[in-house]
Amino acid sequence: MRNFDEHSITDAVRERVANAKNPRVRQISDALVRHLHDFIREVEPTQAEWEWAIDFLTRTGHMCDKNRQEFILLSDALGVSMLVDAINHRLPGDATETTVLGPFYVQEAPEVELGADISPDVEGQPLLVTGSVRRANDGPIAGAMVDVWHSDGDGYYDVQQLDETRGITMRARLRTDAGGKFHFWTIMPAAYPIPNDGPVGQMLDAQGRHPYRPGHVHFMIGAPGCEPLITHVFVAGDEYLDSDVVFGVKDSLVRPFEELPAGTAPDGTTVKEPYRHLHYDFALAPARS
Amino acid sequence: MRNFDEHSITDAVRERVANAKNPRVRQISDALVRHLHDFIREVEPTQAEWEWAIDFLTRTGHMCDKNRQEFILLSDALGVSMLVDAINHRLPGDATETTVLGPFYVQEAPEVELGADISPDVEGQPLLVTGSVRRANDGPIAGAMVDVWHSDGDGYYDVQQLDETRGITMRARLRTDAGGKFHFWTIMPAAYPIPNDGPVGQMLDAQGRHPYRPGHVHFMIGAPGCEPLITHVFVAGDEYLDSDVVFGVKDSLVRPFEELPAGTAPDGTTVKEPYRHLHYDFALAPARS
Repeated sequence: MRNFDEHSITDAVRERVANAKNPRVRQISDALVRHLHDFIREVEPTQAEWEWAIDFLTRTGHMCDKNRQEFILLSDALGVSMLVDAINHRLPGDATETTVLGPFYVQEAPEVELGADISPDVEGQPLLVTGSVRRANDGPIAGAMVDVWHSDGDGYYDVQQLDETRGITMRARLRTDAGGKFHFWTIMPAAYPIPNDGPVGQMLDAQGRHPYRPGHVHFMIGAPGCEPLITHVFVAGDEYLDSDVVFGVKDSLVRPFEELPAGTAPDGTTVKEPYRHLHYDFALAPARS
Repeated sequence: MRNFDEHSITDAVRERVANAKNPRVRQISDALVRHLHDFIREVEPTQAEWEWAIDFLTRTGHMCDKNRQEFILLSDALGVSMLVDAINHRLPGDATETTVLGPFYVQEAPEVELGADISPDVEGQPLLVTGSVRRANDGPIAGAMVDVWHSDGDGYYDVQQLDETRGITMRARLRTDAGGKFHFWTIMPAAYPIPNDGPVGQMLDAQGRHPYRPGHVHFMIGAPGCEPLITHVFVAGDEYLDSDVVFGVKDSLVRPFEELPAGTAPDGTTVKEPYRHLHYDFALAPARS
């Protein structure tokens, strides 16, 4: 095997990776080589463009550390994360739709009582979140774990505060009650740009794109016998709903965050200022075998 | 634009990148999205496989520093470097064929006189290299710059010695004489594995591939009015000629490194031990406008 030209080299590489023992490695390697070579044959990069691509990937790798995952941002911004999400969530029945996990999830957020204020020390407009969890095409789930996280009114998550003085806030875990219901208090999230001071920000700029996501609250919900649900609920009326930089918006996940006057809230709390109210009823798909 | 499924998301991302001002950025972004999404739809990665890919790219980036370029190794091992080389060197007439630059080139190697020994302090079998440089379909070029580099008999380049005690060796620059000829002394190179203690080595292992390149001497040759020539000359008979890990071998670049007994060499030098002799006549393509 030698003397490869711009057409024969693809079969040469495919022949080589056909030696992989693991059939899945063989399948993915073969497909990667075919699609990658087709891309290169189509665009015919110059040597300088190839060097630029090597440098872009290297800078993207160097930007990754424990607080920043630039390759996930790249995957998000190229629609790859939502495509992988769609492929893995061909949902049965009336299960709630999914969207990307995003880079700001933290495992083992504090577990709080129903009705708690999960952002006691953060300025912002009060937000009451109420909801329920049930099995798709079936009844409520008591004791489901509802893991929730969101940004502040300036669009920043707690983990983006580099001095970490803010601690863990605007995130918590709650368990649904006997009727499958949950509620908690927090503050209104806001639209925000994904971190855009690195290679992905440069790419978005070159592509003539803004870096914004519409305001949303993240939910990850788990219960025995159910597929874990990873999704958001988006703020109705947000200006970025139709141009989310990561292509994550689905109509079924948009809800009004209703503006209400000071007074007695639906959970019986007395609120001294105007506040907002979000309600969402989640349905979990059955666990895959 | 929302509610994308695993098919509609591709056109959504293409529509977004169509805003790029630079037409080349627009073209490459559009092609990247189409081919990347096609690849993903074909292999249908699980969420765990997607996470593995993010981690693989991150580790590849973290392996890159001033002495190591893991993304170039990845490009080489997937046949991408040779494909880009082939696309950029559709050669006219009888010009010498090209192959990859590789990661061990050093700019501004010392310029030496014709006939010099470029590896005086390195153990190995003596090797006399003779050759000539001319324009494709035309006559000899006087004063062409011949930049040469190669490994030692264990397969290591000078720059791979981390303590750098060896200094610059087995590399030099020479100028052709009035008749377009050059010659120098060095030692025999050897076949060697590309650095395989990182993610690319793990990939080769998973794909059931060895990491070896056949023994070769690198040449980069420049002259006014000519396209710079980047190529190797490979050792005839090497066991890895048909399985070069980077797919770089072309028959026109393979030559005997002839075994000769002690005695008077073709350049008049008296050699006290058996030695080898490589001869190659290079032809440079005209410069592109």
